[in-house]
Amino acid sequence: MGGYENGDSPAAAAWEGGVILGVDGGTTSTVCVCLPAAMPPPEAPGSVAVLSRAIAGCSNRNSVGENAALETLEQVMMQALTMANTDRSAVVAVCLSVSGVNHPSDQQRMLDWICNLFPGNAKFYVENDAVAALASGTMGKLHGCVLIAGTGSIAYGVTEDGKVARAAGAGPVLGDWGSGYGIAAQALTAVIKAHDGRGPQTNLTRDIIRKLEISSPDELIGWAYADPSWARIAALVPVVVSAAEDGDKVANTILHDAVQELAESVVAVVRRLTLCGEDGKDQFPLVLVGGVLEGNKKWDISGEVIKCISKVFPGVCPIRPEAACMEPAQLVWD
Amino acid sequence: MGGYENGDSPAAAAWEGGVILGVDGGTTSTVCVCLPAAMPPPEAPGSVAVLSRAIAGCSNRNSVGENAALETLEQVMMQALTMANTDRSAVVAVCLSVSGVNHPSDQQRMLDWICNLFPGNAKFYVENDAVAALASGTMGKLHGCVLIAGTGSIAYGVTEDGKVARAAGAGPVLGDWGSGYGIAAQALTAVIKAHDGRGPQTNLTRDIIRKLEISSPDELIGWAYADPSWARIAALVPVVVSAAEDGDKVANTILHDAVQELAESVVAVVRRLTLCGEDGKDQFPLVLVGGVLEGNKKWDISGEVIKCISKVFPGVCPIRPEAACMEPAQLVWD
Repeated sequence: MGGYENGDSPAAAAWEGGVILGVDGGTTSTVCVCLPAAMPPPEAPGSVAVLSRAIAGCSNRNSVGENAALETLEQVMMQALTMANTDRSAVVAVCLSVSGVNHPSDQQRMLDWICNLFPGNAKFYVENDAVAALASGTMGKLHGCVLIAGTGSIAYGVTEDGKVARAAGAGPVLGDWGSGYGIAAQALTAVIKAHDGRGPQTNLTRDIIRKLEISSPDELIGWAYADPSWARIAALVPVVVSAAEDGDKVANTILHDAVQELAESVVAVVRRLTLCGEDGKDQFPLVLVGGVLEGNKKWDISGEVIKCISKVFPGVCPIRPEAACMEPAQLVWD
Repeated sequence: MGGYENGDSPAAAAWEGGVILGVDGGTTSTVCVCLPAAMPPPEAPGSVAVLSRAIAGCSNRNSVGENAALETLEQVMMQALTMANTDRSAVVAVCLSVSGVNHPSDQQRMLDWICNLFPGNAKFYVENDAVAALASGTMGKLHGCVLIAGTGSIAYGVTEDGKVARAAGAGPVLGDWGSGYGIAAQALTAVIKAHDGRGPQTNLTRDIIRKLEISSPDELIGWAYADPSWARIAALVPVVVSAAEDGDKVANTILHDAVQELAESVVAVVRRLTLCGEDGKDQFPLVLVGGVLEGNKKWDISGEVIKCISKVFPGVCPIRPEAACMEPAQLVWD
């Protein structure tokens, strides 16, 4: 415990000023980082000294239910604290950016829960994961628009004077067709339609059957409802992208429709917030994150989305954030 | 117990030759009737003497999970037996027609389960609920096509020589857009899109908010995922039909799209089975059942579906079955 006075123990040093937990809660995975509250000078501009980084599964209450989501959040935070050789008494602030937090009542329930988890004087911030995603691309400044397309999708924007707007992000029941779930569900539907004579034949049938290790489209219904997880459906996106890259027409139509949906959600947010200025030509940052928008594939979904948006708002400035975190192993203390 | 010999007790009479259970298992509700195996002469042509009729909730395993579905089925059968003053030892046959039974493996699991529930020499039949629905309109003969559109939707056909085919019936993940769930989910999506600036304004917003007793579309996401039941979403169909009848464009588009989907599923089945003959003009029965297709509303969904189908197959003969069951209270024994 005296290590801090000698300046040779990062964990003990972190204890002194306390630690901060930052959680990015998604529908597929949840990441918690533990940072020292008294931040040492960064190793490189824009980098952050991370004491630990823990990963868990889905924390979107709308996908797995509230209890499972809260359990995942508690588990990932406790794991990050343990990995940083500290515990909950050292926590001075928690920022939860979690998908599925949509309404002030969702936010309030989560604030009540987190207050009970860390009794004392810690500070708590609860937001939709879009807020952290935006900040990750704008060096922490909350201004501009972010588009997330992972298992779920959402467009979220903030003006210089703090007005916010969002579009999509309402999950599978409410038409998130640009999300990974939406793309994969459309592909599964196309396979069913081809099989029962309502739609054109597609290579998605062969590719999805192979991927799921089933023997016929007849088995798809049983597969689809064996587990309600949205992430499990969305995991088929790479199969759809590959089929489209290989020229399958049905897969191409699904991706083009998804591009349209994603672009429309950004356009709606930018228009409502006038992020593009009165003449529609001002520059504004658009942060793009999530599995559907990442990677340099031949079928470049994010490139197509930007092309669509720039036809309406030529001032769009796309940003693909690189998380400039120093991994715990790299941590060097002076 | 001697009542049967005197011929004055229907329950005791039923005991003698045993009873038959017939179950129609849907995604919203499940009905079980108990019939005497030694059938007395019917009161009227086409009528069936029913000892009892019990009703329970959803028995579609894909909607509520296998355990909940089997519990509902057991509960409704035991209730029907109790109401008929008998018990499981009197059962000589069970016919389960249950939504969500799609694949031979679903059928086998349910057969294994029902065999354990009624040990002895009873006979068991397990089918998709479409089979019972078809028989309900064709005086028991399994020939022709049936279209169910309730919470879920399916088109199912059988040829004179016993070939079968189906289309749709794959649930919400796999694109049953003509179902009650599909219609309601499209309406909810339209409300979200109007609210976040991606779609035209619609009276569905006002009507759905009023129906759900919420204060703003912001609350729809929380509402949609508070309960995974498909029937709860589908219960909004009357709101969509009313809005369409009152001239709302968005609601009308949703219903026209659903009509198209339903007609396409029938056309696919009829074509695969050549129910319409080689020249496409033969007559064939089309049984129409389910909440979406019933009622004489101004916006006549089943009428529109038939209109679409008859453009392709002019020989379609629509049948809207009336369940010619004698209610237990009406039962008279000679």
